[in-house]
Amino acid sequence: MFPLIREILAMPGDSRELRVRGWIRTKRDMKNLVFVELNDGSCLGGIQCTLDTAAFPESAETLAPLGTGAAVEITGKLVPSPGRGQAVEIAASEVLLAGDAPGEEKDGVPPYPLQKKRHSLEFLRELPHLRGRTNTLGAVMRVRSGLSFAVHRFFQSRGYQYLHTPVITGNDAEGAGALFRVTTLDPRQGGSRAGTGDYDRDFFGRETFLTVSGQLEAEAYAAALSRVYTFGPTFRAENSNTARHLAEFWMIEPETAFFRLPENMALAEDFLKFCLNSALENCREDLEFFDGRIEPGLIDTLQSAAESTFTHITYTDAMAELEKAGGFEYRPSWGCDLQSEHEKFLTEELIKGPVIVTDYPKEIKAFYMKMNGDGRTVRAMDVLVPRLGEIIGGSEREENLAALESRMEELGMDADRYSWYLDLRRYGTVPHAGFGLGFERLVQYVTGMANIRDVIPYPRAAGQLY
Amino acid sequence: MFPLIREILAMPGDSRELRVRGWIRTKRDMKNLVFVELNDGSCLGGIQCTLDTAAFPESAETLAPLGTGAAVEITGKLVPSPGRGQAVEIAASEVLLAGDAPGEEKDGVPPYPLQKKRHSLEFLRELPHLRGRTNTLGAVMRVRSGLSFAVHRFFQSRGYQYLHTPVITGNDAEGAGALFRVTTLDPRQGGSRAGTGDYDRDFFGRETFLTVSGQLEAEAYAAALSRVYTFGPTFRAENSNTARHLAEFWMIEPETAFFRLPENMALAEDFLKFCLNSALENCREDLEFFDGRIEPGLIDTLQSAAESTFTHITYTDAMAELEKAGGFEYRPSWGCDLQSEHEKFLTEELIKGPVIVTDYPKEIKAFYMKMNGDGRTVRAMDVLVPRLGEIIGGSEREENLAALESRMEELGMDADRYSWYLDLRRYGTVPHAGFGLGFERLVQYVTGMANIRDVIPYPRAAGQLY
Repeated sequence: MFPLIREILAMPGDSRELRVRGWIRTKRDMKNLVFVELNDGSCLGGIQCTLDTAAFPESAETLAPLGTGAAVEITGKLVPSPGRGQAVEIAASEVLLAGDAPGEEKDGVPPYPLQKKRHSLEFLRELPHLRGRTNTLGAVMRVRSGLSFAVHRFFQSRGYQYLHTPVITGNDAEGAGALFRVTTLDPRQGGSRAGTGDYDRDFFGRETFLTVSGQLEAEAYAAALSRVYTFGPTFRAENSNTARHLAEFWMIEPETAFFRLPENMALAEDFLKFCLNSALENCREDLEFFDGRIEPGLIDTLQSAAESTFTHITYTDAMAELEKAGGFEYRPSWGCDLQSEHEKFLTEELIKGPVIVTDYPKEIKAFYMKMNGDGRTVRAMDVLVPRLGEIIGGSEREENLAALESRMEELGMDADRYSWYLDLRRYGTVPHAGFGLGFERLVQYVTGMANIRDVIPYPRAAGQLY
Repeated sequence: MFPLIREILAMPGDSRELRVRGWIRTKRDMKNLVFVELNDGSCLGGIQCTLDTAAFPESAETLAPLGTGAAVEITGKLVPSPGRGQAVEIAASEVLLAGDAPGEEKDGVPPYPLQKKRHSLEFLRELPHLRGRTNTLGAVMRVRSGLSFAVHRFFQSRGYQYLHTPVITGNDAEGAGALFRVTTLDPRQGGSRAGTGDYDRDFFGRETFLTVSGQLEAEAYAAALSRVYTFGPTFRAENSNTARHLAEFWMIEPETAFFRLPENMALAEDFLKFCLNSALENCREDLEFFDGRIEPGLIDTLQSAAESTFTHITYTDAMAELEKAGGFEYRPSWGCDLQSEHEKFLTEELIKGPVIVTDYPKEIKAFYMKMNGDGRTVRAMDVLVPRLGEIIGGSEREENLAALESRMEELGMDADRYSWYLDLRRYGTVPHAGFGLGFERLVQYVTGMANIRDVIPYPRAAGQLY
């Protein structure tokens, strides 16, 4: 395979003959020389190509009308660069045009929308098919890819099997959020037999939805393979139009047999630090860009989180600290969820680093979490980090059949629908625990991007589908 | 983290004290000794644990009533094994019960359905939450996980960025298959305003579907980052109930800027061989199981494909060979798709190894494929392998705006709906190529499993959703 610009920039300037392929970022004309910065998205920086227009008049002619966004293949020698900021550059001898990106309307085609000037992230969101060509979105997508790979490396190296849990599900998610229906019926026509109240004519012969979590299915496989993790798309049909919510996002959910809460907390901490260290090592250039342009101090924050020991605090103790501190818009009180301002206080004032809050009131957590001896709290754990707040939520699971059945009854849940899930407690049940991490939250944390729509290639939200 | 059985089996039998955790596969009682084979799903084989019932009467009592499927934690010394087939075993001194799996009805709980005897794959399909505990399905899921990781390692090492293309899409897939609708309207009620013919009250304010391919979006990002790959779920609402089709399956789609057909073919060949070699190296024990129990000769086939050089043949030449050979149920003729029997002839008789068939008639391929100079064929490539047939389909893409527009017009497609896709040809267009691999097909190929429902944790097909 031909080398990418990232690879070429690491080669010695020994006058080797090369062809570079990419898109023009900038072009400057000097007397007898044209300087082109060529970028191929393999890294943030481009490679400088210098063409002697007198020596290569034909290529000079090809290059003359081209501007930002035009695709070219440039052949030349890789030589030491006299300029600042780069070790090598291309002394070009041939320029071939692949595709122009006219800066002005031409043959009915409107001008290339991504001119050299800076564009707002809002503007770029309307161009999801082009915005990957900008410095910011290109860097986000490289970090996203690097973090994805780190996720796999982390879990694979610890004996976890990657599990593809289903996207189409018959589970109704028990309060985890609003659901998208999946159907081959036509909602305009009332496809199901009116009045029968069933979906027997639908594709699967029953009601089906997009999954909100792969956890329950992952539990089934943890009881078979001991250690599994999911990494797949999940969905919420919530009508919230904020910078923190998407209707479609990717989630990572490890589930471990024979783990209790302490091992689960240690895994979450190791995992998060592994991801941070991986980004700091492998995506350095992009992180420096984010540190400089998006979130000053970013690298220090990540570095310090990666080096810290996560503090553990119970929900009850955290609440006491919050009540003592006071001064919040939303008054903290036992039994209520932690608000952003509370998370901020815990991670940025009280503890100044990542915090794992454990043992939440059962009322504000899911039915499957293991009850503590007090009968009031469950073995839940949320990992909070400075700047972002909650990044991971998890728990030990209730593995005792009778305890789980009684909790489900308390909540008025239909045990028949969860019969398969209860089977896991009927046959060879084991203590187990797991957690979920919204992948886009991790990408936001690592890049400093404020709006979640800017860390996924094609964001989906209420009323918005570009 | 505590060690998995796979790790323990690789340790020296130096009498170190250990705790193993897992599920009982078999138990044999001898005079004063109980032998337990304990499996934790980390590998196919279990570890033998031997308990001296006289020395440890309490543990003997715990163990006595337990059978296949019961979960236990066993503490003991890791010692050299006198038995055949294992280097080490556990001389147990303590057995703790985590969860029983009664072989007979007890307290209203039916007996554990996975007793020691062999179960048919059909029977297991009805128990997707338990079947991962069997040898066969456990092995499939480990191979599946190993192959997934190989996919990422391959592309990441070649400078490809992992791209999460959207699952919910407004594209209608242009003939790639039947679509699932995604909606928050209720099809029983005819949720959209009757007669308006639009979906403006639906979640996204328009019609939305589950994706059938991430390719078009991947093309957008290949024009930004040069090399991208997708690995995500894709969907077909087809009513075909065969051993080869799923309604939900995972697909891998690399897309490469500045690649033409030959580079694309080389990438596909390298990729496939990398996956095969990775499975042969890292999943050896499981492959030996499949070779012995599922598909005799499997390892030889994979080895030989991994070592072969893929033969290239044009569709036109392949058709001529097929016509010459004759004797097919479905008579081969230029312009028709290759049938399974034709693929079988090409890969098992004519060439005896993997074959890449190129340059198909444009009528049987998608609109975006690059036209050849003859105006009749397109730069498509299908990779066929012995036993399975087509495993990869790809092409060079039409990067020329006028040519693509004219082909879309020929096919009566609505250019307005593809305006964003045409933008990729309007601005900085480059030659590019890619392919798609149905991941379950790869898992079938590597494991020899005949039914696609047995290589994905929770299979989804028409009328079937367990």
